Amino acid sequence: MDDIEVRWLKEEPGSAEILIKGLPGIGHVGKLVAEHMIDELRAEKVAEIYSLHFPPQVIIGPDGVARLARNEIFLHGGKKRIAFLVGDYQSVSPEGHYLLAEAFLDVAERLGVRQIFTLGGYGVGHLVSEPRVLSAVNREELRAGVEDAGAEFNRDEPPGGIIGASGLLLGLSLRRGMDAVCLMGETSGYLVDPRAASGVLAVLSALTGVEVDASQLETRAAEMESIIAKLTEGEKPGDDDALRYIG
Amino acid sequence: MDDIEVRWLKEEPGSAEILIKGLPGIGHVGKLVAEHMIDELRAEKVAEIYSLHFPPQVIIGPDGVARLARNEIFLHGGKKRIAFLVGDYQSVSPEGHYLLAEAFLDVAERLGVRQIFTLGGYGVGHLVSEPRVLSAVNREELRAGVEDAGAEFNRDEPPGGIIGASGLLLGLSLRRGMDAVCLMGETSGYLVDPRAASGVLAVLSALTGVEVDASQLETRAAEMESIIAKLTEGEKPGDDDALRYIG
Amino acid sequence: MDDIEVRWLKEEPGSAEILIKGLPGIGHVGKLVAEHMIDELRAEKVAEIYSLHFPPQVIIGPDGVARLARNEIFLHGGKKRIAFLVGDYQSVSPEGHYLLAEAFLDVAERLGVRQIFTLGGYGVGHLVSEPRVLSAVNREELRAGVEDAGAEFNRDEPPGGIIGASGLLLGLSLRRGMDAVCLMGETSGYLVDPRAASGVLAVLSALTGVEVDASQLETRAAEMESIIAKLTEGEKPGDDDALRYIG
Amino acid sequence: MDDIEVRWLKEEPGSAEILIKGLPGIGHVGKLVAEHMIDELRAEKVAEIYSLHFPPQVIIGPDGVARLARNEIFLHGGKKRIAFLVGDYQSVSPEGHYLLAEAFLDVAERLGVRQIFTLGGYGVGHLVSEPRVLSAVNREELRAGVEDAGAEFNRDEPPGGIIGASGLLLGLSLRRGMDAVCLMGETSGYLVDPRAASGVLAVLSALTGVEVDASQLETRAAEMESIIAKLTEGEKPGDDDALRYIG
Repeated sequence: MDDIEVRWLKEEPGSAEILIKGLPGIGHVGKLVAEHMIDELRAEKVAEIYSLHFPPQVIIGPDGVARLARNEIFLHGGKKRIAFLVGDYQSVSPEGHYLLAEAFLDVAERLGVRQIFTLGGYGVGHLVSEPRVLSAVNREELRAGVEDAGAEFNRDEPPGGIIGASGLLLGLSLRRGMDAVCLMGETSGYLVDPRAASGVLAVLSALTGVEVDASQLETRAAEMESIIAKLTEGEKPGDDDALRYIG
Repeated sequence: MDDIEVRWLKEEPGSAEILIKGLPGIGHVGKLVAEHMIDELRAEKVAEIYSLHFPPQVIIGPDGVARLARNEIFLHGGKKRIAFLVGDYQSVSPEGHYLLAEAFLDVAERLGVRQIFTLGGYGVGHLVSEPRVLSAVNREELRAGVEDAGAEFNRDEPPGGIIGASGLLLGLSLRRGMDAVCLMGETSGYLVDPRAASGVLAVLSALTGVEVDASQLETRAAEMESIIAKLTEGEKPGDDDALRYIG
Repeated sequence: MDDIEVRWLKEEPGSAEILIKGLPGIGHVGKLVAEHMIDELRAEKVAEIYSLHFPPQVIIGPDGVARLARNEIFLHGGKKRIAFLVGDYQSVSPEGHYLLAEAFLDVAERLGVRQIFTLGGYGVGHLVSEPRVLSAVNREELRAGVEDAGAEFNRDEPPGGIIGASGLLLGLSLRRGMDAVCLMGETSGYLVDPRAASGVLAVLSALTGVEVDASQLETRAAEMESIIAKLTEGEKPGDDDALRYIG
Repeated sequence: MDDIEVRWLKEEPGSAEILIKGLPGIGHVGKLVAEHMIDELRAEKVAEIYSLHFPPQVIIGPDGVARLARNEIFLHGGKKRIAFLVGDYQSVSPEGHYLLAEAFLDVAERLGVRQIFTLGGYGVGHLVSEPRVLSAVNREELRAGVEDAGAEFNRDEPPGGIIGASGLLLGLSLRRGMDAVCLMGETSGYLVDPRAASGVLAVLSALTGVEVDASQLETRAAEMESIIAKLTEGEKPGDDDALRYIG
């Protein structure tokens, strides 16, 4: 296996104007949004990315079949052609983050991507009833449009910058002539957070003009909030699907 | 020394249909089974594997002679030709796990291996009186046979997948056209566990048709249980061989 | 991106006799001095250094624009031509420190630098009312001049030597025929310390003959001392600019 | 700088029959013995070894001059020609240990070394009044001679083998046709231990036929024991040279 291996599932994978990145991270916010969109839009998988910068681990599917940890590229070929970057893990090493981000951008270039949206969470350490969506961009000209779509730019939020693929795709895309916007849903950071994901999805829809039914995310958010309410009251929650989500 | 160095002890090492992997891990379950089979079948060592991905350490033999940490390949040339992969350590780095797993598969290819069994433990954090054998496979078609042999497939067991060589040999072997089955003996995870090993051996025998006398493993398991019983009652166990096993 | 990438902003960046290094470190002493000099002398940025040895992270500017973590080279073209090395981070790995230090020296050679000053803090673990400036050099002949300028050389201070770029630039520059002096401001190690920075600046001015107005550093030092006084008395300090400095 | 850089100080460094390795480690036992022998025999430095596998750090000499962390080769040209390997640090990474050990053996080969003695400490976690010297060898034939010289071979001592250069030089030297003996002085592991060093020196003298005056080591041992006695009685020891030794 090469350090990073991109396996295209077709010779002609098609093209995409925008790339939406939703890898695991704080509150799994980005992952929730991107996987939800893939489901709703019935996007098709076109590539798998393997790397020895991922944990040395296999994932067991519901059928008992184990497969290597990986990232995946899905494509949606509607009016707006969208590529999605999702997966099990991010890099386990600092250098691996840089090398994978460059590989993701190679994939984006091959698909003809002009604009990147990286989705993530912004952990604040306490429960948030009305989560904001924070943003950062790779060119100042993009800011006004993002604010119009409902996201905020606040000095020192997040403090210290943005770590991992969400950040590096912004930092490394400019030199390839791509626009990039990071959207971060405010979240406690302790739990998978479909409420924060729902907020990010709304901003993303406004920015891209792509509407997807958010009701499934809303249902999950309501379930999660009911679980939290029970936890807060000291009850033990049942074996609920919402808590089995990660994994 | 190269990053990974395979030293064949003969020019014509022979061949094997199946490879059984039993490296150190949870409860040393896989190691116990593979080393027990090597002893009982009087398998012959055909290769040593050295690597700077192993700990920078030598092992001192009972004769006072120090040798590099290593992995080893043994061959049993009976009706069923079996290769065994055993050793002192697994990789100390994430990337090293991937690189060593590929090197193990190169060895398997050279020997003509068609099927791989990776053996390990599944730590549950408490003592288990009747340990199950959990499994994962690299092709769904293998599942029914493994279930018939007495192993179970359970959703989310182990949660998070399988780490290290046991997992990666499953994930990386499919692309080489080899079948692979992981068998994990349920164990507390706190102690060397010959009882769990005994369970894994039974499933493995049913799957491969290779019978080995399990009485030595059973004796060790009984010794270990007697030690645990004494520990539970607060007695100090004697200087028993069973506790000196690791190392 | 290469492992280390030096981006010159002009084809003819100019030249410098001396290089002053002020990267983040203990009490941010070196960073405070170098950035203060860059401001006061209106030095011009001539190069940016990117590396996968820096944290995999972007920094968000006050305009909401994210950029890769980086180091920077500024040039001041007065009577004394000075290059400054400043930046967001040092290497996250031991080897990266060595590789980046060599890259910094390549930059210094290209600029014609003959003498290097590395600035840092020397953490003593308690508040210091009259901080000393400790020093180390890469040639014994440099010592007398540094002592005349007000710095001290004390056996076992700092104990264990000097870690990171401040140290390695001394250790690696001799073989390139450059003189190098490390100046370390005594500091608690717990807080950003403009008082220690002010002391280092005074010694550096005496050594280089370059005078800069220190009043802004003095103001910051006074603010910081007032905050510490309040903290010591148990009051909560206000949302003061001085505490927002890092980041 | 290369990954590992051996700087020979002369074109014809001479030759040596044996190499004695005394790098920092448990109780600094090996370092104490090797540096004591270098002093007593007035051995001459012939090479310096630099590496980015050492900590990214400079050491400040008593003259205030900083130099890179390094290892050194000294040569003693008496009846018995001896090379010494000493230095500030061992590798900070597992792979670096392997790579440096190979580099040390390259140096040994160039000098014509036929036998290696690696010196270290064996930490037992409590004060030892009459420290033993434990040993391991790289060929069983060497064992009897080492026992005659006063060292012991005990099963499971040290448990888990020997880590770092002391171990790897044994493991890697056999394939180069060199004999190797590791001598480990029993020590608490908490303090620099000249008493353990004295025991190792006695065995080493018996093995090599090289006698050096041990009185300085004995004096240090007595000083250290007097300090420990005071510590045990709860007194604060004075600013004694013996405690300033490390660093």
